[in-house]
Amino acid sequence: MKRVAVVGATGAVGTELRCVLAQREFPAESYRLFASARSAGRRIDWVDGPLTVAELGPHSFDDVDLAFFSAGASISREYAPLAREAGAIVIDNSSAFRMDRDVPLVIPEINAKAVRSHNGILAVPNCSTIIMAVVLWPLHRVHPIRRVVVCTYQAISGAGARALAELESQTADVLAGRPPTPHVLPVPCAFNVFSHNTPIGEDGYNVEESKMIAETRKIFGDDTLRIAPTCMRVPVRRVHTEALSIEFETPITEQDAREILGTAPGLEILDDRAANRFPTPLAAEGRDEVYVGRIRCDPTIPDGRGLQLICAGDQLRKGAALNAVQIAELLSPGSAASERKRGPT
Amino acid sequence: MKRVAVVGATGAVGTELRCVLAQREFPAESYRLFASARSAGRRIDWVDGPLTVAELGPHSFDDVDLAFFSAGASISREYAPLAREAGAIVIDNSSAFRMDRDVPLVIPEINAKAVRSHNGILAVPNCSTIIMAVVLWPLHRVHPIRRVVVCTYQAISGAGARALAELESQTADVLAGRPPTPHVLPVPCAFNVFSHNTPIGEDGYNVEESKMIAETRKIFGDDTLRIAPTCMRVPVRRVHTEALSIEFETPITEQDAREILGTAPGLEILDDRAANRFPTPLAAEGRDEVYVGRIRCDPTIPDGRGLQLICAGDQLRKGAALNAVQIAELLSPGSAASERKRGPT
Repeated sequence: MKRVAVVGATGAVGTELRCVLAQREFPAESYRLFASARSAGRRIDWVDGPLTVAELGPHSFDDVDLAFFSAGASISREYAPLAREAGAIVIDNSSAFRMDRDVPLVIPEINAKAVRSHNGILAVPNCSTIIMAVVLWPLHRVHPIRRVVVCTYQAISGAGARALAELESQTADVLAGRPPTPHVLPVPCAFNVFSHNTPIGEDGYNVEESKMIAETRKIFGDDTLRIAPTCMRVPVRRVHTEALSIEFETPITEQDAREILGTAPGLEILDDRAANRFPTPLAAEGRDEVYVGRIRCDPTIPDGRGLQLICAGDQLRKGAALNAVQIAELLSPGSAASERKRGPT
Repeated sequence: MKRVAVVGATGAVGTELRCVLAQREFPAESYRLFASARSAGRRIDWVDGPLTVAELGPHSFDDVDLAFFSAGASISREYAPLAREAGAIVIDNSSAFRMDRDVPLVIPEINAKAVRSHNGILAVPNCSTIIMAVVLWPLHRVHPIRRVVVCTYQAISGAGARALAELESQTADVLAGRPPTPHVLPVPCAFNVFSHNTPIGEDGYNVEESKMIAETRKIFGDDTLRIAPTCMRVPVRRVHTEALSIEFETPITEQDAREILGTAPGLEILDDRAANRFPTPLAAEGRDEVYVGRIRCDPTIPDGRGLQLICAGDQLRKGAALNAVQIAELLSPGSAASERKRGPT
């Protein structure tokens, strides 16, 4: 029954989205792939044979039931309302609508029920937010969290397919003794680390950091949650690593944390101290789960209320494409979503 | 007057040490270079012509006044006492003696006076400690620090010259489509991030993290200082980047912090929000200063007592070689150090 459109089909997230849809055998009746004029005309191998990428236009959604958007916020702002008017449900990977009151911001492991009350657009949170939130939520449910200090080690893929290509070519340049010349990212990324390439607000926090704060609060339904982020990029392809220092309202033991995280959905503990095996980008690349490890009590917080850990999740997968497809899977035939689609009869 | 020996002269720190000694025109009468049997016999260009690297042995220090050690803790444990007995003053870059009560642990910008009371051995702190401490100390002097959460983005050079070579060759392998095979480091370093490659203690903290806690307390002379570190390696050559979240006893404004850090020795502020220019490994590589930026108040700590920032410092330079030479420069002819050397007459 579902005629599915993928907007931004040739980008980093769009490419992963096609991969996840195929792997999970998403029950689509048909697919249409859209991209910018630059990519239009490209032939892409698909489940039932090759598909031609079309240029996105105002009438792209005339025969679409479900549209995945991952072409940036400005494209979403322009075309998602058109898709909705044409009768499609939009699952948006951009930041365009995330903080809108009537747009559910959904991580299925956390707030699946939120999909019930959408107005035609549902938003996928920021990748860094998702990877942190799936770890924090199961802890927060049992031991309310007071404050989190988070430092990210973010992959280059978050800046898109062209940035990923720049990482490779620039790294080759440096190895060959040529100076690194940035074109896509603002500073050289090869063998470098840099503050996240989003604008800085008056409070000194960049947009990525502000997203982690505001989105986590919205998803958790808790406006008092205190999050102090530092978002940095590292020369890694597609997995975000994050170091979390968590202060709880009440004491928590290391064993508590291991039991909670060990049974939480979407997580896998990788925490072998003897072998020094912990979450890394290489371990998490291409995986659905977010890896968690280095779990330890933080003695600098009184009364046993502190915990530190690291986590690593595939930014393109759970951080974007997989989470989007999981949302689509929640919108089953009997859901409020499809009710809305059919409208009053 | 000073006959100087460099132990570990061909290693990553030893190579940088020779460079710093030459650049600063260190007032040495003569130099002797020592290394393991593997490197013995190598000819190295030096200020006054080429020098031959000798194999380290029990009589290497017979005519030496000052010996820089950077060949690892076990070499220091074996040979530094011999050097001292032979009459030399030892400046040790290893962890062997750092926590010994009668060994000064010195960052000249912080506790220069500590060099006055040594017993023949002075220790250079761990690189991550130095880079954090030069930033924290000027703030701590004015606004006492209660707690620091620090996440490191550590360079590969800290694991030695062979690890650095592995970063290059392994990165080339990955770019060529070959699997990354670690030989020196425990996990692949190319396009990866991993928990610091030191053993993990029972408390869950690795040795690098424990050093940051214990050494900073010793240098600051404050056993109550609370530090919660997460030490990670990133595919970067020789600069450690660190993200600090600092809780003070009393309120501090962003302007306070900028004024203090802007006039503190050994620091340079790089904090251009409009241009997104902040400390990076590439900016700090080969520089003496530790760069500081992303200075912002942390609203998750009540009463304006929170501050966040990042810093980046050359691990081989201020993190090791430069700091060692600065200690040597403090040991001037009139100092207690040289008094001890001459002994009672």
